[in-house]
Amino acid sequence: MLKPPEPTADDAPATERLAWLCLARSRNVGSMTFRRLIARYGTAARALDALPGIVTRTGANAYQLCSARQGEEEMERAVAAGARMLRLGTPEYPPRLADIPDPPPFLWALGDIQLAHRPAVAVIGARNASSLGLRMARLIAGDLGAAGMVVASGFARGIDAAAHGAALSNGTIAAMAGGVEVIYPEENAALAAKILEGGLFLSEAPMGMRPLARHFPRRNRIVSGLSAGVVLIEAAARSGSLITARMALEQGREVMAVPGAPLDPRAEGCNTLIRQGAALIRSADDVIEALEAPRALNLREVTEPYDLNPPEPANTEASPDLAERALALIGPAAIEVDALARDLAVSSAALSTALLELELEGLIEQRPGGLIALSAGG
Amino acid sequence: MLKPPEPTADDAPATERLAWLCLARSRNVGSMTFRRLIARYGTAARALDALPGIVTRTGANAYQLCSARQGEEEMERAVAAGARMLRLGTPEYPPRLADIPDPPPFLWALGDIQLAHRPAVAVIGARNASSLGLRMARLIAGDLGAAGMVVASGFARGIDAAAHGAALSNGTIAAMAGGVEVIYPEENAALAAKILEGGLFLSEAPMGMRPLARHFPRRNRIVSGLSAGVVLIEAAARSGSLITARMALEQGREVMAVPGAPLDPRAEGCNTLIRQGAALIRSADDVIEALEAPRALNLREVTEPYDLNPPEPANTEASPDLAERALALIGPAAIEVDALARDLAVSSAALSTALLELELEGLIEQRPGGLIALSAGG
Repeated sequence: MLKPPEPTADDAPATERLAWLCLARSRNVGSMTFRRLIARYGTAARALDALPGIVTRTGANAYQLCSARQGEEEMERAVAAGARMLRLGTPEYPPRLADIPDPPPFLWALGDIQLAHRPAVAVIGARNASSLGLRMARLIAGDLGAAGMVVASGFARGIDAAAHGAALSNGTIAAMAGGVEVIYPEENAALAAKILEGGLFLSEAPMGMRPLARHFPRRNRIVSGLSAGVVLIEAAARSGSLITARMALEQGREVMAVPGAPLDPRAEGCNTLIRQGAALIRSADDVIEALEAPRALNLREVTEPYDLNPPEPANTEASPDLAERALALIGPAAIEVDALARDLAVSSAALSTALLELELEGLIEQRPGGLIALSAGG
Repeated sequence: MLKPPEPTADDAPATERLAWLCLARSRNVGSMTFRRLIARYGTAARALDALPGIVTRTGANAYQLCSARQGEEEMERAVAAGARMLRLGTPEYPPRLADIPDPPPFLWALGDIQLAHRPAVAVIGARNASSLGLRMARLIAGDLGAAGMVVASGFARGIDAAAHGAALSNGTIAAMAGGVEVIYPEENAALAAKILEGGLFLSEAPMGMRPLARHFPRRNRIVSGLSAGVVLIEAAARSGSLITARMALEQGREVMAVPGAPLDPRAEGCNTLIRQGAALIRSADDVIEALEAPRALNLREVTEPYDLNPPEPANTEASPDLAERALALIGPAAIEVDALARDLAVSSAALSTALLELELEGLIEQRPGGLIALSAGG
């Protein structure tokens, strides 16, 4: 099998890595805000220095800086666990994941990070899977592995665990909702030990964090974001697997589903997806065929890794009233930033700074796909 | 429910009805030859009279006329069984069936012939169905009936029998491979008694004929031909149900399939059909939706009943060498009659007569869709 070259190690100084972590962990600094700050200030250290000034200027008080001490504590936990920091924009960062609208500013990685640089397919599904579903997951994940694909999944019980287990010998990536070293659910402890030997754990969550229900949807965007496509095996209506499918579509990933008898509720989500245009999957061959000939609607080439190194820190200060004018046009329904810029007759760069301030104030929030809306809590 | 008006009874004299039967039962007179003969000679009686002359002129000896006595015997069996003759081109004939490329010249009918004038859907599938498949057949057939659709099927054990049974109260049509009064398989005797009470049996086979394996594919074209669409529930690869699906496509009918777990061999045919574009069916609602919004490729409006009453008997005698010239251009691969007429630079009417002679000689055979080819046995 052709192995990708070992990615160049991230040689940024420890101060910048710490600042990167602190900036990403600061309250109300999401993935898009993070990238805007880096684009504007060039380094995380400079952005961290600038944040208090932005707050003063805009009167924002919704954000709270992650302190250097908090950051150092997390760094120490990572060192103790053997976790490696993969920063967005560096060669180590999973290239496919960098291509999604809201890539994590960094990931903690435990295991073989080369796996994140090989072609991957996500195999996900129900926790309460049937034995037929589990067999299908093992069969497809094993055959995809034999065909040279890395199998990504969410480390849940049921389909996820079966897929990881069958893909161990060829490479598997578990995207975790909690801390990268927090084994949850505990019944997967034996599987976790095997993944640590030859696979890869990834997480954007703070080291040591126990996963909560609200963390799973965001984790799911990483499962799909790491992958060329997502195969669903047994997914009930309104299941987490369907959230992943929707995210995969937003990310331009191929969505594939294994059908089932309609009288089995576990088949409902998959059958509905197929009706909506997802490829019907019977085997790993069908997966490979779907990935080789994606439907036009979903076709999206994976581009160069996201460029986080702008030539110069931007000098686009927003006039104070631009943020207010923008806010007047933003409602609870998500709108496109580009459309807003046209409506306001300003450059995207100028609007970007105004939106950054509104976001730091907690007044607006970013949505996937370059959309913004009034903050749900605001 | 809106009932269609009672179709006008067929008031042709007994001699013409007998001639119709004899012509249809004559050896090597298939559905298309039959229509050509009627189109050329106006009545079955005149066509029967003309046949010996055609044979003499062309030296054909492959055909054998059904004698008046054989015909009378079948008529007597029909009277005894209470079967009614539905002749192609009369108002009693199932209008949708008249629209297929090779409609039977006539059908024997036992039961309520109005059912063949209401919108129908075929529900077919495996004989060795699973209990989940049988439940699905009952559910869909029952709900289609409640929605005003007649359910057509092939009276086989398994899915067919379950569909007929669930549709009894709203109307069901059983297309038989053998004689219309021959109950096969015998285990369906109780079902047959119920269909006789309120449903409809149809068959193009001679009265009293026991069905043989080779009769089933031709019967399947009647099941699909009677219907606006065909729903497959559990169909293995290379099953009779898939033959029906292919015929339905050739007839411009909607093909629909209920998916199943790929590890179940009974799901293979249905899942493959869905991959090829068949509508994925979870319920009767999905069937109705598919019929209301058929895919463009399968769209074909049901036109007026086939017109078998040409204004005048045609006078297009073929020159003896036209048949030979045509034969030289016809190979084992099926070609279009229209294309052949263009190649020979003759009218379709003149070519038609030449082809009729070649067909009666057993040298060529008609294929569905207006295609002809060298006879497999010739």
